[in-house]
Amino acid sequence: MRFFKLTLSYDGTAYAGWQVQSNADTVQARLEHALHSVTGESTRMTASGRTDAGVHALAQVVSFSSTTALACDVLLRALNANLPSDIRVLRVEEAREGFHAIRDAVRKRYRYVLHDAPIPDVCRRAYAWHVRQQLDVAAMQQAASALLGTHDFRSFEAAGSERATSVRTIIDVSVRREPGAEALVVVEVEADGFLYNMVRNIVGALVEVGSGSRPANWIGDVIAALDRKAAGVTAPPQGLFLVKVDYDE
Amino acid sequence: MRFFKLTLSYDGTAYAGWQVQSNADTVQARLEHALHSVTGESTRMTASGRTDAGVHALAQVVSFSSTTALACDVLLRALNANLPSDIRVLRVEEAREGFHAIRDAVRKRYRYVLHDAPIPDVCRRAYAWHVRQQLDVAAMQQAASALLGTHDFRSFEAAGSERATSVRTIIDVSVRREPGAEALVVVEVEADGFLYNMVRNIVGALVEVGSGSRPANWIGDVIAALDRKAAGVTAPPQGLFLVKVDYDE
Repeated sequence: MRFFKLTLSYDGTAYAGWQVQSNADTVQARLEHALHSVTGESTRMTASGRTDAGVHALAQVVSFSSTTALACDVLLRALNANLPSDIRVLRVEEAREGFHAIRDAVRKRYRYVLHDAPIPDVCRRAYAWHVRQQLDVAAMQQAASALLGTHDFRSFEAAGSERATSVRTIIDVSVRREPGAEALVVVEVEADGFLYNMVRNIVGALVEVGSGSRPANWIGDVIAALDRKAAGVTAPPQGLFLVKVDYDE
Repeated sequence: MRFFKLTLSYDGTAYAGWQVQSNADTVQARLEHALHSVTGESTRMTASGRTDAGVHALAQVVSFSSTTALACDVLLRALNANLPSDIRVLRVEEAREGFHAIRDAVRKRYRYVLHDAPIPDVCRRAYAWHVRQQLDVAAMQQAASALLGTHDFRSFEAAGSERATSVRTIIDVSVRREPGAEALVVVEVEADGFLYNMVRNIVGALVEVGSGSRPANWIGDVIAALDRKAAGVTAPPQGLFLVKVDYDE
């Protein structure tokens, strides 16, 4: 048995998220089907994290095992030949025995794209959250700095999640306006792990600050509240991109 | 009878272009259908120019006449309520009698987006031309400068086009690399009018220069050749955006 680490990008617009579901088209189902077409094996794949419907990935990491004799680069080309154009395998690498995309992940980075302009951009409707009001990026930066470090982030966690602890460590958080004419504000968050909907809930709160509904120091109060109801809206899925997943090699 | 000037944006991905066709979904058909739903009238609309399948518009201009008594802002909201999310009416204005979106246009501006990186970006596959090789923007800028001014552009015109003359005046042309991390090169061309496929043929030639296949001064030779076969490849439709259309008020 060989173990593999596969890196892939996808446009989540057409899919009901990563995870296999009985009556919906998912990225996992497409990828497992492609592997079956190539190797003849029915193989369960594991992604570093499930992405929800409409969420995109620049570099999702997937682990699986196979008895295939194919070289990694041949497998890469064969999988892409069996996948639709909105899912692309970027790399296939041999991994150590037992490599597991969730358990072995040490850091993840997400990006969230906001389009702040009076008029929506039809070509960004599936890749950004359109906010009509111009966002105050300096206030959002100040607010975001309170998120850095190790905190109990349960105020930013979707209700009903199962996990051992809601303590996570945010290693990096940035808010920047993209240079150029287009009204794009990009939030990036890197952490040792994320709670369910954590980035979308953080972005929802940052937009409340950026639009002037809340002061920048409100984010500290939200963290301290340890209560999901303190944080406000959840940003919609289509602005979210999984940027990268790091592993100790 | 009232005359209207309508400005709209659309994501051309799902459509067989602007113009009504018997067996295909088009932007014009959707817009005329929406107007019929709102006013009960069957009205033919005229766009400043047909866009091909997959080509996008940030601000296409459309003229039509109607006996509707609705105010412009009411018409705007009612049309958008009857249109899919990939077509948005941005403005509806009363126009002078006989206003005609093609005949009265005095200038148009197009943008073409190139993504030059070894790996494709799935979320840009419908909004840019992916070129694997890094483009030499300085060489493309030098090449583009030869296009400025009044020339016979028949070398950049699709075969079989019907028009009185192939002489056009390019008022502005720019090639720039977008600031930021993403590998995006944007070409913009503004002219008093465009021949069929002219921007896509110009971009195809500029990419030959940017990738080192041709020297920058080759563009002048292509213009002088007065022959479509001299210019090389046609850039694919999905990178093309109609940016604006100007009228003498």
